[in-house]
Formats: sequence, structure tokens, C-alpha cells
Amino acid sequence: MTVLPPNPPAPTCPAIVLVRPQLGQNIGAVARAMLNFGFTDLRLVQPRDGWPNADAGPSAAGADAVIDQARVFDSLGEAVGDCHLTLGTAMTTRDMIRRVTSPAGAVAEMQALPSRSALVFGPERTGLTRDDLLACHAICTIPSNPDFGSLNLAQAVAVLGYAWVVGQDTPAASLMVNHDGPAAQAELSGLIAALEARLSENGWYNPAPGLAETSRRMLVNIFTRPGFTGAEVQFLRGVVRSLATPRSQRQDRG
Amino acid sequence: MTVLPPNPPAPTCPAIVLVRPQLGQNIGAVARAMLNFGFTDLRLVQPRDGWPNADAGPSAAGADAVIDQARVFDSLGEAVGDCHLTLGTAMTTRDMIRRVTSPAGAVAEMQALPSRSALVFGPERTGLTRDDLLACHAICTIPSNPDFGSLNLAQAVAVLGYAWVVGQDTPAASLMVNHDGPAAQAELSGLIAALEARLSENGWYNPAPGLAETSRRMLVNIFTRPGFTGAEVQFLRGVVRSLATPRSQRQDRG
Repeated sequence: MTVLPPNPPAPTCPAIVLVRPQLGQNIGAVARAMLNFGFTDLRLVQPRDGWPNADAGPSAAGADAVIDQARVFDSLGEAVGDCHLTLGTAMTTRDMIRRVTSPAGAVAEMQALPSRSALVFGPERTGLTRDDLLACHAICTIPSNPDFGSLNLAQAVAVLGYAWVVGQDTPAASLMVNHDGPAAQAELSGLIAALEARLSENGWYNPAPGLAETSRRMLVNIFTRPGFTGAEVQFLRGVVRSLATPRSQRQDRG
Repeated sequence: MTVLPPNPPAPTCPAIVLVRPQLGQNIGAVARAMLNFGFTDLRLVQPRDGWPNADAGPSAAGADAVIDQARVFDSLGEAVGDCHLTLGTAMTTRDMIRRVTSPAGAVAEMQALPSRSALVFGPERTGLTRDDLLACHAICTIPSNPDFGSLNLAQAVAVLGYAWVVGQDTPAASLMVNHDGPAAQAELSGLIAALEARLSENGWYNPAPGLAETSRRMLVNIFTRPGFTGAEVQFLRGVVRSLATPRSQRQDRG
């Protein structure tokens, strides 16, 4: 007997997160593309020219509700703190061990989740950095001409919006079962921060130039990539706590 | 620019692992189905009637080389110790958080790996247990009639063998990039054993009936499911060691 997961509830549209967007005009065009496909949750991380931005209105072309409700954050981590699946759009993997999926694959994953997901887009000129991508569970690459592959920001949002609408009835090739979705990003960040604090206390980080940073990135990648659930993140916090409890204090645990 | 992984080398055929097989006749039929699709690496875990088994020869129908080279192991862990991707065939997920894939999906994953993988099949009557599945990175379910879904052991092997041949040219929907494949099972087992030993020393396991076992299973699942690479497994061993080093011993690390 093939075990199929129960029908998921109607999927929640993803938040669209723009990291360090440069031009107000592009932010407006993104808002328009979002509303074209039913998305309304726009989040801005450190917009270069501040917010609100008068240049956004005209290109939003009537998507004023999206512009008006847009929220500004100081960091990508804060922007996706309540999101359970964070997919970063990028054309390169920055040499990290990462899962790369297509727009259709990204949509299938987001639509299988009962909770909020996020699609993250980098600045117009440079795209997402390696540190931005570390905060994402996987990378979504839009197939494009290898010789001329850089998409306009709003057009990239439109491609994902279109894939969302098309994907409503497409089944996924591989499914995680009995999984209520990855933990909210804020919970995961808490685990990683606790782990880093304990390791730092114990002198784990190599003081040689660059090595601590490499270790920190590997740690974040290892704990972000699997998409651990909220219960698993809590379980791992207990594991970290217990590992870091010296034998001499064992009686504290009863 | 879309970043594609380099062309993989010719894929290594998976080991076929039969866990506690009951009938010698079925083992022979499996050997035949294996050779039909070019597989030769047969591994038996605790075959009920011992090994060699005179009943295997006739149904092998000429696949004597597979029978002659079959190896016997005391546990599933030992049988897949050198395998870097272990997929358990099952019709149910035993309520674990696990990734479930189709035969085509399983084949795509195995063919993307440069190293040895394993396809694990349970006993004829009961299939793989929950503990067997814990040793597997993911579950492969063969689509079948929900009202009459139990496949003959050798036929299940044949379906996977056929999928292997068909899959030679099918691209995967989602790919892990910059990933040299999950660590060999023996390395992963070493990490989990070290982690369990430290946690046990620190009194982590709840003595109430059943709770320690539940925690143990969750720990194995959490560290098996992600498919950490060999380098990541080594990194995590260092993390565990450092976490478990009390502050008073910090000077040991220099």
C-alpha cells in the first residue's frame, strides 16, 4: 500500500523578501508583480534609499496595498524569523553544499507546507551574498541563458509568481512525510546561537585569521540545510545543553 | 547563469541488502532479478535459514556468480557500513519524519552519487522495522494497488532494477550541489555512538520506561536524515567533543 500524505490545507502565499534593494522603482514593480499572482507580504531588508520611497508608487501601478503594508527589517534573519521555509534565489551556489531547486520545485515545496515560507531576492547589482544564502534552506535557480542570465528583480518575482499559480495542482517528486515543516527561522537561530556560545566558551574557534569564520559558516550550513522541525530544534537544544553539562554537575538533572 | 553540477562519473550499481530474508528460493530469485539489470552486490543480514542455502540455486536460474559472492552480516549497520546512501524500501513510514521517494526518484539520487549506495529490502512477511528504517537516509515506496500492495521480494528488486536502467538519462528535479555524497554509514554510526556515549555520561537519557528509546530514535533520525558528508560528520564529532569539554579543561585545547 502506498502511503500518501493527507491533503494539505490551502497553501499560504510566501513572503517576498528583498535584501538591500537599490531602486524604489524596482520595489514598486515587485509589488505589482506580487499582486498579479496574489502575493501581498512584502518585506524589505535595509533598502538602500530608506522607506517609504516615493519612486515606488508609480511602478506599483495600483498595487498600493502591497506597498503600504511593506515592512522594513534590519537583517535577513529578522525578516524571515517567522518563516518555516526560506528559499534564496540565486544563480550561483557560492561553493556551499546546498540543495538547488527550480521555480517549479520551489513552489511544490512551499505549497506542501502549512506554514509561512519566504522567497528571498538579493540586490539588483550583486544578488545574495554567501551569508544571505546561509540563512536559506535551499537555493532556487531560475533557468536562463548562460550567456545572459541576469533577470530584472521584478521579472524574477513574476516568474516565481507564475510558477506558484501553475504549481497548484502539480504533485512533488519526493516528499518529507510526518514533517510539520522546518522550524521558524527564529527558533533555528536560537539553537545556532546557543551552540556557538557554548563552543566559544570552550575555546572551539581557531584564532587563526579566517578559520573561526569558516567554522561558523559550516556550523550554520549544517544546521540550516536539513530543515529540522520545531520539535527537533528544541530536542537539539536539550542535546547541546546536556553535552555542555560537565559530569561534576550531573546531579542537577536528577 | 544557471550553475549545473559537473557530469557525474558512471554510476556505481547499488548493493542489494536483504534483511532477515526467510526463503532461500526468494534469495535466488532476487539474485536472478539483480543480474537481469546488471547488479551483482548481494548482502544478506541474518538470513533465517543460514547461508549458503541450497534452495537459492534453482531460482537463481544461472545467476550463480551473484549467489556465490553474496556476503552475510550480523546487522544492517554492518551491511551498509561502506555505503554512502541507504534507501529502505517500505510501504509505510512507521510514523517517522522521513523523506519518501519513488523508484525513479531513488534511482536519480543513486545515479548522482559517485560512491556506493544500498537498496534495503525487509523480510517477506513483515517488511523493514522502524529500527531498520532508522539506518536509511530515506524511504523508497513502489507505487502499487492500495488494496493489494504487497510485492514479492524479487519482483520489488526487479522494479528497482528496471528503474535503474530507465533512469540512466533522466535528470533529477532537485540536486544537492558541492556535495560529495553522504558519509559512509560507518562514519555516521561513529558520530552517533560518540554522541550517545557523551549524553549517557551526562545523564541525558530519561530513566522512565520507553523514553530513553524514544530519545535514542529521535537522535538517530535527526543525524541520519540530512545526509551529512564525511567532512561534516568529522566536523560534528569535533563539535561534540568540544561541547563536552568542561570549561575547567579549556587550556587543553591551547
